[in-house]
Amino acid sequence: MLRDRFSQYVAPLLSQDEWLVVEEAFDPKENLAKEAIFGLTNGRMGSRGSHVEGDVRFNQTLPANYVHGVFDRSEAFMRELCNTPDWTKLRLTFLTEPIGVCSGEVRDYIRVLDMHNGLTAKHYIMRSDNGNETRVEVVKLLSRAHPRAGFIRMYVTPLNYEGMLEIENVIDATVTNFQDMPRFRVKHLRTLEVSDLRGLGCYVESETRDQKLPIGTGCVLRIHTPEGENALSSRNFRPYGEVACEFADTHVVPGKTVVIDKYAAVATGRDTDSVSAQVYREIEAITTRGFEAELAMHMDCVHRLWEQAEVRIEGDAELDHAVRFNIFHLMNTPDPLDNRVNIGAKLLHGEEYGGHAFWDTELFVLPFFDYVFPDIARKLAEYRYLLLDKALENARDNGYEGAKYPWESADTGEEECPSWTIEYDGSCYRCYVADYEHHVTADIAYGLKHYVDITGDDAFMKDMGAEILLQTARFWSSRMTWNEEKQHYEILGVTGPDEWHEPVDNNAYTNHLARWNILTAIGLYRTYQQENPELARRLADKLRLTEPELARWQQRADKVFLQAERGLIEQFDGYFDIPDAVITEWDENGMPKTPEACVGKRGLERCMLKQADVVMLMFLLPEVYDKETQFINFDYYEQRTMHRSSLSPSIHCMVGLNVGDAKRAYAYLERSAYVDIHNNQRNTREGIHAASAGGTWQCITLGYCGMRVDSDGVLAFEPRLPERWTKVTFRIRHKDQLLHVTVTHDGVEVSGDYAPICYRVNGAEKMSEVRA
Amino acid sequence: MLRDRFSQYVAPLLSQDEWLVVEEAFDPKENLAKEAIFGLTNGRMGSRGSHVEGDVRFNQTLPANYVHGVFDRSEAFMRELCNTPDWTKLRLTFLTEPIGVCSGEVRDYIRVLDMHNGLTAKHYIMRSDNGNETRVEVVKLLSRAHPRAGFIRMYVTPLNYEGMLEIENVIDATVTNFQDMPRFRVKHLRTLEVSDLRGLGCYVESETRDQKLPIGTGCVLRIHTPEGENALSSRNFRPYGEVACEFADTHVVPGKTVVIDKYAAVATGRDTDSVSAQVYREIEAITTRGFEAELAMHMDCVHRLWEQAEVRIEGDAELDHAVRFNIFHLMNTPDPLDNRVNIGAKLLHGEEYGGHAFWDTELFVLPFFDYVFPDIARKLAEYRYLLLDKALENARDNGYEGAKYPWESADTGEEECPSWTIEYDGSCYRCYVADYEHHVTADIAYGLKHYVDITGDDAFMKDMGAEILLQTARFWSSRMTWNEEKQHYEILGVTGPDEWHEPVDNNAYTNHLARWNILTAIGLYRTYQQENPELARRLADKLRLTEPELARWQQRADKVFLQAERGLIEQFDGYFDIPDAVITEWDENGMPKTPEACVGKRGLERCMLKQADVVMLMFLLPEVYDKETQFINFDYYEQRTMHRSSLSPSIHCMVGLNVGDAKRAYAYLERSAYVDIHNNQRNTREGIHAASAGGTWQCITLGYCGMRVDSDGVLAFEPRLPERWTKVTFRIRHKDQLLHVTVTHDGVEVSGDYAPICYRVNGAEKMSEVRA
Repeated sequence: MLRDRFSQYVAPLLSQDEWLVVEEAFDPKENLAKEAIFGLTNGRMGSRGSHVEGDVRFNQTLPANYVHGVFDRSEAFMRELCNTPDWTKLRLTFLTEPIGVCSGEVRDYIRVLDMHNGLTAKHYIMRSDNGNETRVEVVKLLSRAHPRAGFIRMYVTPLNYEGMLEIENVIDATVTNFQDMPRFRVKHLRTLEVSDLRGLGCYVESETRDQKLPIGTGCVLRIHTPEGENALSSRNFRPYGEVACEFADTHVVPGKTVVIDKYAAVATGRDTDSVSAQVYREIEAITTRGFEAELAMHMDCVHRLWEQAEVRIEGDAELDHAVRFNIFHLMNTPDPLDNRVNIGAKLLHGEEYGGHAFWDTELFVLPFFDYVFPDIARKLAEYRYLLLDKALENARDNGYEGAKYPWESADTGEEECPSWTIEYDGSCYRCYVADYEHHVTADIAYGLKHYVDITGDDAFMKDMGAEILLQTARFWSSRMTWNEEKQHYEILGVTGPDEWHEPVDNNAYTNHLARWNILTAIGLYRTYQQENPELARRLADKLRLTEPELARWQQRADKVFLQAERGLIEQFDGYFDIPDAVITEWDENGMPKTPEACVGKRGLERCMLKQADVVMLMFLLPEVYDKETQFINFDYYEQRTMHRSSLSPSIHCMVGLNVGDAKRAYAYLERSAYVDIHNNQRNTREGIHAASAGGTWQCITLGYCGMRVDSDGVLAFEPRLPERWTKVTFRIRHKDQLLHVTVTHDGVEVSGDYAPICYRVNGAEKMSEVRA
Repeated sequence: MLRDRFSQYVAPLLSQDEWLVVEEAFDPKENLAKEAIFGLTNGRMGSRGSHVEGDVRFNQTLPANYVHGVFDRSEAFMRELCNTPDWTKLRLTFLTEPIGVCSGEVRDYIRVLDMHNGLTAKHYIMRSDNGNETRVEVVKLLSRAHPRAGFIRMYVTPLNYEGMLEIENVIDATVTNFQDMPRFRVKHLRTLEVSDLRGLGCYVESETRDQKLPIGTGCVLRIHTPEGENALSSRNFRPYGEVACEFADTHVVPGKTVVIDKYAAVATGRDTDSVSAQVYREIEAITTRGFEAELAMHMDCVHRLWEQAEVRIEGDAELDHAVRFNIFHLMNTPDPLDNRVNIGAKLLHGEEYGGHAFWDTELFVLPFFDYVFPDIARKLAEYRYLLLDKALENARDNGYEGAKYPWESADTGEEECPSWTIEYDGSCYRCYVADYEHHVTADIAYGLKHYVDITGDDAFMKDMGAEILLQTARFWSSRMTWNEEKQHYEILGVTGPDEWHEPVDNNAYTNHLARWNILTAIGLYRTYQQENPELARRLADKLRLTEPELARWQQRADKVFLQAERGLIEQFDGYFDIPDAVITEWDENGMPKTPEACVGKRGLERCMLKQADVVMLMFLLPEVYDKETQFINFDYYEQRTMHRSSLSPSIHCMVGLNVGDAKRAYAYLERSAYVDIHNNQRNTREGIHAASAGGTWQCITLGYCGMRVDSDGVLAFEPRLPERWTKVTFRIRHKDQLLHVTVTHDGVEVSGDYAPICYRVNGAEKMSEVRA
């Protein structure tokens, strides 16, 4: 077992191998990706897996600690999730020699992410230039029990020397975003105070530069023997500009382990008027309870999350493991208590996309929460409602009616996607996605409607969702233009999910989703008119909604151009006029190679797709095309899709299953599941792909197990397990109970906590078991 | 020639090999010492030779920039010369890959210190991980023409790639003292402003934390082709907390060189009310004149210094080179215009000893300036007069009369040597040197008296020196106690130069120097009484000096215990009672090994000496012992001296010569001359040994060439060149003209600028030539 490679102190804290993600050697070239893979989040903040001892070359590490909702723009070209003061640093020095993974010769290195217990642990023996050998073990966690708190425990054992070990408990507020990219590097925080935390340790108070949101970070040290006896020799506080340091030392002797605990607390002005007081109270509380108690409370919380979220696939152990990896990062990211924050496209694990929410949330991530953590899904849904006013403004500013959601959304709901960006090679380009990628508005409406369908949270729909559906429908109505010649409505000048073709007219995906949005909104309103006329009146009043307007919407939805109904669907007007080519070669990672004919071609010149709009459409609205049409289109577009978006593979898996192409489906499942754990897009350094994580979960549960909630609210399954899988088990929260679902080649078994419920398997109704 | 290894741009800026100190490869383990060796000073500030591109592991570099007189204590245990904002950083990045000596595979590396031109230059070709190859050349200088200005020029040539090179002109104010020693690390400056220098570039304003002395640092970039055409693509200013950054980029193509010039200016509140205005003006001036003009002006200044300071030894090229190395750093360190600053024991090249002045200045360093740069010597002499009041206070506070100079002196003249210090292994100890090492007061008196004797600056003596001599004499008188039993005065409880025995009674060195101090002061006063009675009266009035007090001094000087007059002199009372041992083994560097009998013994238990007091005494006061006694003592103590002070070898060289031991003398000369250029004490990382540098110059001129100024003011020589030397030439400024001195085995030739002067060679008078 991997845990046997740790000392007797750390091994008992670790789970069995199947729960561990392992790094067997420190490789500077892979470290940036490993910092994302070994990143920890606790629903409120995130901390990348940078080595806490420091001393890693500056462009081989991007230490980052994020707190949900802490955004700033300053010199950046968008409001970014800020890199907040690094509370994780805990430096060791012996006679001017630092101790760390880059500081000497390292052997017996192992680092694990223990997904079951929600912590990282590492072990190594390091020989410094002066011949001193030290065994170092580090355990790190961000508490799920006390989400303002983080903990680092170090077991340090000198193997062949004696003397004073110097320890620095550091809070480093010099951090920036995009540290290794000079062109983009921005420091988002101003440091207001560097102090000793009323004598307890060290403290930094910062504020964002634009909106002056305060952030307090406090840390204290405890140094003791494994038996708990104090081993501190001396300590004092040192201010180093924007770096707060609690210096301490301890006398070490060969073979004797010392334990160094770092307790950290982070507060922001988002939830207190005095961040310093909150940090102080939190530090007092966590140090009083102590590391062991805090660890136990944290693990208990994580175990309870897994009780809901665990997925098991028997028959493909590596995939089984990777699926858990995706779920681990996904389930720990959103704040279960805060509806003012969402989930960034790279979770809280990296700085790309500024921590902004995209359509990834509603279409890729939300279904997981709908089924597994509906309370969190509710918060994510509320987030869009809270920013509805800004979406109304956004539509108005762009000359439309209703609500137009921004392509990228941070805390204010303003469009965060910049109009101009600079590539990291220095070239500037006009970025049109905010101008054209309007489908996000329909995607959000779609996601929220399905949230209600899956969870049965009609209250949300009444209180918030209906307004969103109606205002987005109103947007789409205003977005259409009448083509007198062709006698239909069109949506001109948009970009679909396939961003390589922009702008285009009558994008199949957008037109269909817009129509769906309008019809769904009208349908909902008509239902309310019948079943809850008071609510319907209230909505009409609030939205100044009139029957003539509804009629206008209906007319536009009815007459919007929908390309063909059968056969090959043209992704947008004129796509088939582009010289055709198909993919015939793949690289060593299985990624398609650009066909010769397309090399050097850009934008509308090439038929190659970044991701396939029609395939995505068939995934979301499977009812619009018959099976044969779906197969024709999947087969056609799959040969022209480069999958340069991590959103693409999971959709191709599920649509592949729908059209009966199990082989390609499985390959796409693997591509989706392994994107980060294998860093197979080489961009995991930027964070964990939220859409892949959510998409992977969907592939297993909605795809292979064929789960859905039928239109009458009944849970239904149409499983189509691959031959090699013998069993899939997972859990969902449905109708207020936790259901255990077991899918085998023989059928589907569902068991719940108390009352039996009805479910369907391939159309046949069954009753769930009640567990003892 | 070494310069042929540079490009056509840099080669013409470099001198012939004999003027170059060379580093052939970047060795991280040697880098800290190389930062001192390649450090530059310009009489006002110093900048260690850290690699300006950055990216060197944090404990393998101690970037430091010092400005004379900028001291601060804060959490340190003494006021230290502050590490001021690092204006030298100039970072290059191409597609996230930094370019620098540690950032990839480096070949063709060469770095030189060009002592003749006063600059450093380096050349290397670096291959980054992505295969890009870049030739980098860097020239750096601190202007001697405009001592607030520094310049860095980079020639950057991509060899095999094209694109946007990112350049960061950085001022880094996060710097600390003792960066790699957590226990001692202190940040002495508070950052007040990080701005864009009125749009010109970047600017940091700092202040010392204790006394709030402002320091302004400004830097601007110019990017152009070698032909001078602007090559800047874009630039903007970025504030990163305490780091100011001017970001710029330039489009580079293979084989085409771009030139990046960094202009820097540093101002302090020591000489202006508005540091920002002064920095701005200076930057305007130096950028207007441009790099080439500034380089020419700087080189002209350095060449003029060498016209005075050059020493040539024919017959030992390596020594010849090392002597120039010592002179280079020594002559560039003191401020020729500022009598409020002195010379630190490690020059301006490192942080050890806090930049404090010790007795090293008066006894080791001052003679070089007395003979070569008497104007500078005058400033150094004035420094002690300016701090005489504090020395009076220091005596009073310690229960003595007169003036007691501090063991370590910074800007205020207070004792800066701490009573308690901590070793870097964490152990605390009571440091007694300030309590006991009183000889510094006599050393200063001695040095100043010899300054006047050598330079003939009687005005200094009248205006300042006499007061110092009298007040230090008064101190020594009060420092003596009467031993009724032995019927003599004693000086009890002192430490001599040999700090391994503390405290001791009747230290031979101290007793003799104290007596010399008193007698010299009385002698001077009596002379003034005869020749300048008004001055004598004025002194008596100011110092409340009475004849009874003078008589008391005389009595004490006459009756102070002086050990033996002949034969073996006991270093202090009881030294001969310590069990004896002699050195019989030397390590591979020629350093003595501790004899078995002394291993583990400390302090007064062991006869081994750190440096030899009696030998030092014989150097300073050669007249007190006859030649035979001198030989006996040199021979005896030399066998018991471990030379753990860098002050020891040069003295042993000169006394060795005096007693006729030419062989040992030469070995000591080499030890002194090579201490830093060979880093043979392994502590050159801490700075350049001022005392070795000055002592080495003394060995050549006063030792081998036997130069002195006779009591009647006539320049005299008693040369004793080693067999292998064929000729020594050097220059001194004497009686207002620059004299060229040529010493061969055949005699001594002196030539001057205009009037012939009389000089003596082995007692025979000669007249100097007048050069055409």
